[in-house]
This record gives sequence, structure tokens and C-alpha cells, in this order.
Amino acid sequence: MKRSIITLTTDFGTKDGYVGAVKGVIKRINPDAEIVDVTHEIEPFDVWGASFALNNFYRYFPQNTIHLVVVDPGVGSKRQPLLIKSADFLFVGPDNGVFSFILQDDEIVEIISISNQKYLLSEPSPTFHARDIFAPVAAYLSMGVDIREFGAPAMECSKLFIPQTKVTKRGIIGEIIHVDNFGNLTTNIEAKSIHLKSIKGIEVKRNKISYIAKSYYDIPEEEIGAVIGSSGFLEISTNQGNAAEFVKADIGTKVRINFK
Amino acid sequence: MKRSIITLTTDFGTKDGYVGAVKGVIKRINPDAEIVDVTHEIEPFDVWGASFALNNFYRYFPQNTIHLVVVDPGVGSKRQPLLIKSADFLFVGPDNGVFSFILQDDEIVEIISISNQKYLLSEPSPTFHARDIFAPVAAYLSMGVDIREFGAPAMECSKLFIPQTKVTKRGIIGEIIHVDNFGNLTTNIEAKSIHLKSIKGIEVKRNKISYIAKSYYDIPEEEIGAVIGSSGFLEISTNQGNAAEFVKADIGTKVRINFK
Amino acid sequence: MKRSIITLTTDFGTKDGYVGAVKGVIKRINPDAEIVDVTHEIEPFDVWGASFALNNFYRYFPQNTIHLVVVDPGVGSKRQPLLIKSADFLFVGPDNGVFSFILQDDEIVEIISISNQKYLLSEPSPTFHARDIFAPVAAYLSMGVDIREFGAPAMECSKLFIPQTKVTKRGIIGEIIHVDNFGNLTTNIEAKSIHLKSIKGIEVKRNKISYIAKSYYDIPEEEIGAVIGSSGFLEISTNQGNAAEFVKADIGTKVRINFK
Repeated sequence: MKRSIITLTTDFGTKDGYVGAVKGVIKRINPDAEIVDVTHEIEPFDVWGASFALNNFYRYFPQNTIHLVVVDPGVGSKRQPLLIKSADFLFVGPDNGVFSFILQDDEIVEIISISNQKYLLSEPSPTFHARDIFAPVAAYLSMGVDIREFGAPAMECSKLFIPQTKVTKRGIIGEIIHVDNFGNLTTNIEAKSIHLKSIKGIEVKRNKISYIAKSYYDIPEEEIGAVIGSSGFLEISTNQGNAAEFVKADIGTKVRINFK
Repeated sequence: MKRSIITLTTDFGTKDGYVGAVKGVIKRINPDAEIVDVTHEIEPFDVWGASFALNNFYRYFPQNTIHLVVVDPGVGSKRQPLLIKSADFLFVGPDNGVFSFILQDDEIVEIISISNQKYLLSEPSPTFHARDIFAPVAAYLSMGVDIREFGAPAMECSKLFIPQTKVTKRGIIGEIIHVDNFGNLTTNIEAKSIHLKSIKGIEVKRNKISYIAKSYYDIPEEEIGAVIGSSGFLEISTNQGNAAEFVKADIGTKVRINFK
Repeated sequence: MKRSIITLTTDFGTKDGYVGAVKGVIKRINPDAEIVDVTHEIEPFDVWGASFALNNFYRYFPQNTIHLVVVDPGVGSKRQPLLIKSADFLFVGPDNGVFSFILQDDEIVEIISISNQKYLLSEPSPTFHARDIFAPVAAYLSMGVDIREFGAPAMECSKLFIPQTKVTKRGIIGEIIHVDNFGNLTTNIEAKSIHLKSIKGIEVKRNKISYIAKSYYDIPEEEIGAVIGSSGFLEISTNQGNAAEFVKADIGTKVRINFK
């Protein structure tokens, strides 16, 4: 069983050399591992942002890809280091909710609480588990070491609260759960819950949107619009502008779909 | 014919996981593809900036490298998805001018308007063609699929206006076309059009520069100077400062070379 | 002897395509070279920052890794292009102090002043030695070319001043030498010089810290604390905040450990 791709998602930035150390540790243990940078620009300590980003990309990778996700404000505390095996993928990172979407949506096969010292750097620093615990575990996993080797099954693990929509006869009330690089506002309203013909309008703050556009390009310039985004959620967007600045909205802002 | 390197140039940033999805799609189709990040930090929607960056790097790669460039404000509109074959390289991206320098300067062999559904993800999202159209096309290209397989020759394609210099007996009038990470101001005045001995001086805003320095280091500190930049254009620069801030200049600012 | 990994550390940013050109040059010379991005986000011209980052990661890579480090405010001046061989690694970059920690701490085998035109791009630009000198040298090194082929031994090379601590009967006076992505303030006080039992307190600006915490997580929220960082130095930190903003400290700020 070849498991050679390791993706990296962190809030480390790159300028301090921390990411370099993580990559070095992986390549020293398994020179054949293929490291794929996803991002090191998650906002410092933004566990939610990392969990959301992970959900946007993990399923597109080949089977047996190892996703290493380290946004870890509790490094050095008693939170467990986790190894999660789903039907198609392996995930390595801290038990702080960063795998919430995986645990909610993916088919989980096993969850291991990492404890076997044999697969860690000796004397792990209490401030840099990415280098001393998670990177070596990912590297040994990529060499085919069985997941049971790394520790015992975890008894429980942390999930973030993922806000759910409220559906009534009059409409759907959701909220913004992510703001992307372009200022698009992703809501928690799933595309499959929307019946285009029954929509009277969409409200966000004092803005009223009368229809769901096919693409950003179909939104009139200088106006606020709505599209079905590529993640499968309703997005509040503009045509080549920044919707977050336009609407002055952020994570948590309510979005209301009114039915006819 | 092995064509295994795929370079990536986008305005996506990395924090949302969109680039991760693009990489996953490529690796799932062709696990042997070698992905090389150029940048994901083009300013959102800055098609010109992407076309200029591309021109700075594409020719240094090995023959048959595939350059995937996605800065795509018109995603979801009727603009064609393009595949361009030049003498040495393949280019994949939207038909919005991002390949302007290639079309102007490189030896174009064929231009294909991508249409064959067989090589796209099923039901492409109208907001994320990079993941659903351009990434799979680049991946199949890297496996050796013939370019004619992807669609019919394009009838025409978009070019941005590339400003040209005016040359008179008294001098050359050009303008700034790029501001780099260090604040160097790249002009559209080509090195080969400059005869050092005939130069009396260079003017940009109210600054007068009396000679072309050999390197940034030869510009006196705290002064504004001019050098022949590595792209083959005249640059307005400083020695370890930020020329853009110093001169308060930007793209479009006129630069005048006066002859003796 | 296979030497195929080349790490990249620069202050180029990525948006201009300069890093793309460096990568293209390497891949064209040696298609089998494995390029590993460490960072392109060193502050422009920050030689000290690059030397510190390098020290954080270089030793974790496999033997014979080539570390290419280009932060080069003196590009085009007479400063030598250097190739350094230590017991386990090769380093390529400008002679401006960027290798100060290597020269101080690592076991140096040989230092070469790069001069052999055969291994450079023809007519190197005086403003872009990374592309025209350092990248090709790294690529040929990765193919196994002997280091003596690149030039003669360097007579001397530049080192930055690395500030040392003052130890007295009453305590240790050090200073902040790096601020990381999270705002942690790394000092020059080495972990091994600290005897926990003899510490009465730590002072930085007007803040008094009474003990060294085991990890960031053990620092009370909204308070300033001290930990032994992963680089082996004392760090001034907070629990999920930004210590640099909290203390209003920067590189050079004094930190004092008082003994009992």
C-alpha cells in the first residue's frame, strides 16, 4: 500500500523556517514522501478557518493521501495528537476541532490517539508538535506503518459547533461561516436545500437580493448578489469586488432566504 | 513525449483551500505530474499582473512544461477556456488576456478552445473553473493526451493592450508597467532600445536621474536611480529602499529618457 | 552521491514570477532535482531574518540537502557568491552574513567563492543573481558536480554580529533577536544556560514574569509569559495572543533574568 502524498495546512506563515523544519523532518524519515503545500496562511490560531479550508480540498486528492493539519493553539496542553483514518484518507493533527467537517461528513474507519514514542522525535518540544510529533507520524504513515502502531483508539474527540440553518414555511435563516480571499461570503445554506423557483428574495444586513445568479459574472457590477459557490453552499458575492467590504459582513452575519 | 511539470499561477491566495483542490484534482488524474507553485498571490482579478509575471518565468522551464494560469474575473461567463501550444510550452487558462505577452512574443503553434467534456470534472461549477476545467485539462495534457483532443482551434483570442514607447529625436517616452515586491518600477522601455552614450538624463515625476547604474547597489543610498532590470526593461529603483514609495509612482506613470 | 533536494529561502515574494524563474532554471538543468519551498516571505533585504530562519530548519533535512538562500541587497556589487560545504549540508547564496549561524555553529568543511562561468547562465544580469548564478550552481551541485569545480576556496567571508548574553552573579541580560509569525519574541538566552531553580523572575520592558511556563498553553490568558522555545532559546510569549504587540517589544529589546 503506497501512501506517499502528504499535504500541509498550517497557520505558521513561512518566514520563520518552522515549515521548513516540518518538511525536513518528513523528508529525512521518508525521502520518497511527496509534500504538497496547501497553505501556511491560516490566520494564527484559527482552528475554524483550517477546518473549513480542509473541507474545501481534502476529497479531491488521491486515495490514501495523508492530510497534515496543524493549527494548534493548545500545543503543549493535554489535548491528544490524533490520527484519523476515513474511507479514503488519513488525517494527522491536534484534537481541537480542526477535523470537525471530516468527523461530521466523512466515513470514519478509526481514530487513534498518538502515543507511541518510537514514531516521534526524541524529547518533543512542548511548543512545536508539528515538527516533533505530527511530521514524523505523517512520514512513517507514508511509509506504510499500520495506524494501530501509533497508539490506541481515541475514546472521544473534539468537534467545533457547526452552525445549522433554520428552515420555516417562510424561508431559511442561515449565517456566514467563511470569508474567502476575494471577499466572497460563504453561508451555511446548502445548495441542495434551495429550490430556485420558491425564492422571493435573499436578505443580508440591509441588502436585498432578488435572485441567485449563475456566476459572479452574472451579478450586475457595483451590486451585491448571490451564487451557488463551488463548495456547494450559497455565497453572497459581487462581480469583481469584495462582498465582505461591500456588505460590511463577517463570520456570524445572518443571511435570510424568503420563500414566495 | 513526457510532459510532466505543471506550474501554477493564480490570484487565489492559499488560505481557503482552493489551491489545494486544484492540486488534488491534478494528482488524482496524474499521480506522476510534478506541480510547481509559482504564485497564488497575484492581486485578486489582476489579469495584467499575472500576464507580466508569466512573462518573467515561463521561458526558463524545461521544454513541454505546462503553465496553468488562472486569474479569472470572468469565470462562468462565455469567455473560452484556452489551451495554447507554443514552440516549447503549453499554456492553460481563461481567454481574458492573461497570455498577452505569450501571444505577442512567443512562437505560437496552435490555440485550442477547450470544449471536450471528457476531460473535465463532471458538472463543472460556474464559479471554479480552475478546479473543474483547467486542472483536469492540465493533468491530462501532462499524461500526453493530444491537444486536438481537448477541442477545436480557437477562432480568436483576447489580448490586453501592451503600452508601447514613443521614440523621437529628443528621447523616449515610456511608462511604468509593473511594480515589484521590492518597489522596483519596471518600465516598458526595452534595454535594447537604449544607447547608453546618447542619454542625457531620465525623468520620472519630478525626479531627474543622470545615468543608468550597473546594479541597485551602484545607486547612491537615499537616491532614486535607474538600472537595466533582469526582465530586459529599464527599471526605476533605489538601493535597498522602495522606489514606488520614494517616487510615489505606480503603473501608468510616465518615464522619459532625454537624449543628448 | 545523490544530492537531489534543493530548499529555497528568499525575500522575493512570489507575485512577480522571480521565484518561478529560479525554479525553471533549476528544473531545466536538473529535471530530477526536488525543489522544496521554505519561504519567499523574508522581509525585503532582511539578511538577519533569513539567517535566523535558516538556523531554524536546515539541520532537519536529509544529508546532502542543498540550501539555497537568497536575500541579497548587495546583488551586483563585489560581494562574492558563496558555496559552503558543512559536514552534512551544502549552502549556496551571497556572502553577506546570511550564513552567520552556520559559520558559527556548524562543522564547516570548505567554503568556495563561485567563479566558474561554465556553471552560470550566460551574461548574468547584475540585478538577479538568484536566477543567473545561484540557481544554476545549486542545480549542478544536485547533479553531483564537485564543489571545487565552482571556484577557488574563499579567503574570508562575512558574518553578522550575533549578540551575546551577559551573565553576572545577579542574572543574565539578553535581548530579543527574532519576532515570529505569532508574535513570539525569541531571545538570545539559550535554554542550556538557564537553571530553573535559580530564577527569581524575568523582566522585559516593564513586565515582570515570575516563572518559565512549560508551554504557551500554560501561560495565563491575557498575561505575558516565558517558555523554552523550539529553537532552544528563551521566548517571551502569550497564550493565543501576540506577545510583540502586548509588550511593544522588537528585535533589540533587552530581556533580563534575575537570579535568586
